Amino acid sequence: MLSEFDLIRQYFTRSAVSHGSVALGIGDDCALLVPSAGMQLAISTDMLVEGRHFLPGTDARALGHKTLAVNLSDLAAMGARPLAFTLALALPAAQPAWLEEFSGGLLALADAHGCALIGGDTTRGPLNLCVTVFGELPPGAALRRNAARPGDDIWVSGALGGARLALEMALAAEPLAGDAGQKHQSAPPVPPIEPALLAQAATRLHMPTPRVALGLALRAIAHAAIDLSDGFAGDLGHILHASDCGASVDVDALPVDAALQTLSPTLQRAWTLAGGDDYELCFTAPKAQRAAVLAAAASVQTPVTRVGRIEAGSGLRLHDGAGLALDAAPPSFDHFGTP
Amino acid sequence: MLSEFDLIRQYFTRSAVSHGSVALGIGDDCALLVPSAGMQLAISTDMLVEGRHFLPGTDARALGHKTLAVNLSDLAAMGARPLAFTLALALPAAQPAWLEEFSGGLLALADAHGCALIGGDTTRGPLNLCVTVFGELPPGAALRRNAARPGDDIWVSGALGGARLALEMALAAEPLAGDAGQKHQSAPPVPPIEPALLAQAATRLHMPTPRVALGLALRAIAHAAIDLSDGFAGDLGHILHASDCGASVDVDALPVDAALQTLSPTLQRAWTLAGGDDYELCFTAPKAQRAAVLAAAASVQTPVTRVGRIEAGSGLRLHDGAGLALDAAPPSFDHFGTP
Repeated sequence: MLSEFDLIRQYFTRSAVSHGSVALGIGDDCALLVPSAGMQLAISTDMLVEGRHFLPGTDARALGHKTLAVNLSDLAAMGARPLAFTLALALPAAQPAWLEEFSGGLLALADAHGCALIGGDTTRGPLNLCVTVFGELPPGAALRRNAARPGDDIWVSGALGGARLALEMALAAEPLAGDAGQKHQSAPPVPPIEPALLAQAATRLHMPTPRVALGLALRAIAHAAIDLSDGFAGDLGHILHASDCGASVDVDALPVDAALQTLSPTLQRAWTLAGGDDYELCFTAPKAQRAAVLAAAASVQTPVTRVGRIEAGSGLRLHDGAGLALDAAPPSFDHFGTP
Repeated sequence: MLSEFDLIRQYFTRSAVSHGSVALGIGDDCALLVPSAGMQLAISTDMLVEGRHFLPGTDARALGHKTLAVNLSDLAAMGARPLAFTLALALPAAQPAWLEEFSGGLLALADAHGCALIGGDTTRGPLNLCVTVFGELPPGAALRRNAARPGDDIWVSGALGGARLALEMALAAEPLAGDAGQKHQSAPPVPPIEPALLAQAATRLHMPTPRVALGLALRAIAHAAIDLSDGFAGDLGHILHASDCGASVDVDALPVDAALQTLSPTLQRAWTLAGGDDYELCFTAPKAQRAAVLAAAASVQTPVTRVGRIEAGSGLRLHDGAGLALDAAPPSFDHFGTP
């Protein structure tokens, strides 16, 4: 059987330091990172637990991708350029085939973003993946949650609800035991969906694309930003709370994943408003920046949609395309909430 | 029941940013860190799993302390000054009493080192604690594993074997099911030990003192350094491998924890050489620096002991106080090794 150190060396160590900011990578008590002169370091950490954030038996390559992607998505939401990351993982057993695939998916995404794996920890235990990611950005440039201002437009990148659809389809095919399953027990049945669209939705769930380039392009244009991990309504709520603002959102303007087209309007609304796992950006920008937002989005080939407006006061007001007020949004995902 | 966000706010969020290097703490997509001008950032991550790194039922306050301590120990081994850390934790359930104690132990140690909690993630899952810690140090100042040179003295801080003794006593009182227990099944019985010494050994196991001040004091004096987490012989082996050197060590010179005094010489040797969880520093320094090493250690009230010499070639040669060669050291702890 491979030793812990053999495992780390074989699958996660790169021969050369792959980034100018990395003075020392894996193999010592600490890694050494050197941000560019005058830059701030943006740092985020996310822990993924089997049965909670991904289904048992999830493809290892996709899981490697997603483990880093959810962290890069946090950098994107701040407008930070990725530099490096650490990976700590607990594994029930040392399986070379799994490690080969997992590290392959992880490092392919890392390479695509010039983000170097600089350190980590490997131990035996229930499957658990923890990445801490480092990016850099100029002082004052961060897209903070507290920067929304009354009158700002509210924008969303990409389309919403696809990941939730794919999750529901996977759960319907093979119900989960335990907590992650319980919250989905009452999910309504879904009509037949075109296989190509369903495959696209599954990719959104298992291999989300972090909107790093969009976050960078929006830096001098947008006010507040957040990445959509728990669901649009809940995550926009964090911006409203931090910015001490309210908002009005046209639910019919929300970009709906194409795979949801055949679903009932109720289900479409529920999963675009509170589907979870979208990893799109929600951001606010002054009305005067509409053209700049569209140009920035076009420059990085990422669709963006204007869905509402920041207002004075507090609370999220939803209305339909005809202006008719709707009930409050469904609650967003909460790891400790009652099922 | 508390929501995830309530939990985080209540136990881990501090009202004010506690460190000049922290531009933004908990509460946004990323934290923002600003190392002092011209400094490098030292980064380390460690994951602690219940039943593997600590016994089920371990006191929550001690566990909070240890979760950060093992990471600060990595900064110490590089000679880096602590700045900040992130914490990701998976919990089987949200228990306010446990969180109160855990965060209390964690933040008390953080405060003692001026190390700010700047971000994190909380989720439901089998108990798992992952800290990533950030320190700073001037370029070129790091105590690297690859910096040992033939002729260097080998030094160890504090005393060894106490944590292993405390672990064996705890396991003898309440054998562990599963992996962590298996490797200890054949541990020999231990004679009666003075309660005060045993309590001290238990503190070493559950609330180790990271040698941060010593690491800083040794920066311009020592060559290579490593912190002793897996055991002296194995961890020194990492220095030898990285530095392409061999070493000769006088086993009778190794500083033995006072609680081990009544044990057989064989057991004393085994647990000082490969006990694990010592969190002392092992470092090398030129012979000409002996007085400087002792002065540096005295300045931070930390005992250090000279135990051997770095040599050309490869491999670790152990001998007793009379110069008689001994067999190879027992293997160090390996999370994936066969029991």
